[in-house]
Amino acid sequence: MTAPSSAHPISVYEAIRRRRDVRAEFTGDPVPDPVLHRILTAAHQAPSVGNTQPWDFVIIQAPDRLAEFAQHVAERRARFAASLPPQRRETFTPIKIEGIRESGTGIVVTYNPKRGGPNVLGRHTVEDTGLFSAVLAIQNLWLAAVAEGIGIGWVSFYDEGFLARFIGAEAPVRPIAWLCAGPVTQLQETPDLERFGWRARRPVSDAIHREYLR
Amino acid sequence: MTAPSSAHPISVYEAIRRRRDVRAEFTGDPVPDPVLHRILTAAHQAPSVGNTQPWDFVIIQAPDRLAEFAQHVAERRARFAASLPPQRRETFTPIKIEGIRESGTGIVVTYNPKRGGPNVLGRHTVEDTGLFSAVLAIQNLWLAAVAEGIGIGWVSFYDEGFLARFIGAEAPVRPIAWLCAGPVTQLQETPDLERFGWRARRPVSDAIHREYLR
Repeated sequence: MTAPSSAHPISVYEAIRRRRDVRAEFTGDPVPDPVLHRILTAAHQAPSVGNTQPWDFVIIQAPDRLAEFAQHVAERRARFAASLPPQRRETFTPIKIEGIRESGTGIVVTYNPKRGGPNVLGRHTVEDTGLFSAVLAIQNLWLAAVAEGIGIGWVSFYDEGFLARFIGAEAPVRPIAWLCAGPVTQLQETPDLERFGWRARRPVSDAIHREYLR
Repeated sequence: MTAPSSAHPISVYEAIRRRRDVRAEFTGDPVPDPVLHRILTAAHQAPSVGNTQPWDFVIIQAPDRLAEFAQHVAERRARFAASLPPQRRETFTPIKIEGIRESGTGIVVTYNPKRGGPNVLGRHTVEDTGLFSAVLAIQNLWLAAVAEGIGIGWVSFYDEGFLARFIGAEAPVRPIAWLCAGPVTQLQETPDLERFGWRARRPVSDAIHREYLR
């Protein structure tokens, strides 16, 4: 399957179906700036509690900085591997968990709880809705990237404090994701964690309930 | 602008642009079951940390139950209004915050941190990634709904404990959203909170940074 391009718009259902969490398929080519701008604009069109738009996007492309973050992630990967029972460790070993250098671009998404002032409409009852808004923006970005032939890989093997210092974010601003972004040779038909036998997909019928969760 | 239908698939960028948080535009017609199934299937295709798929969807359509939840939300709305300074209260008063009964369908999204067992690949460093996965599913659902001519309205004026009891969710499972879902007369061009002068959109350029957040 070849990657689509913006000249051939794909439907929202097709983007949802084809979206993958990419590690190994980055070509090494940079994301063209206009493409990066379009996918960040899509992210910025996300809904947010009280219309606070609490997200920011930090684009990291300096090779020495990508290498530094990749080194940090490699250490955290080793710690996780060491924590696994032997059989799970064997399943885990061949799984690639990041493409930080190969993608050429990192997008750190941050959440700023101060945006919107003291009275955020809709956040007073459910505090997490602020954080959730920034996550909705990530899914917009991810689906727009599919339409652009850009692969996205969400890396979560890092310490939040390390990443905050790395981008110069000060509390209460939190980095909530590192997204690798770059052109890809292809998007896999089957998610990596299924292909490598880590965990299979549940049937959707298991996730749907009527009136009560049972 | 009329609502699109599944017979006329829309591009992912168009879905992102047209998506609105709907309160007032529900027609009162029920969501056809096959449509509901398609948008929940789209939700279920979301990425998740360690492929845990930690979400569930509880469909609520019994009119007495919709009325009961709407009553709870009305009380929480009154409390928020009372907490505002007079000028903000005046801006808030005409803003409709839910369409629980009018939509005819509530979809409660829950997060189950136990799914995936004790070793969740990628969640050991950033605990919130489990919760984030369920939020990514919500954005998939929301965009698929646009393609189906279904409006979605995320309600967050509720107490989490109340909603957990309401659907029979037991700790550590958490309800994280109530989504009103139903056919709509139209999707507004401009978000409600902009139209009512609550808060305007920031330029996207304000949200984009290079290498460092500054």
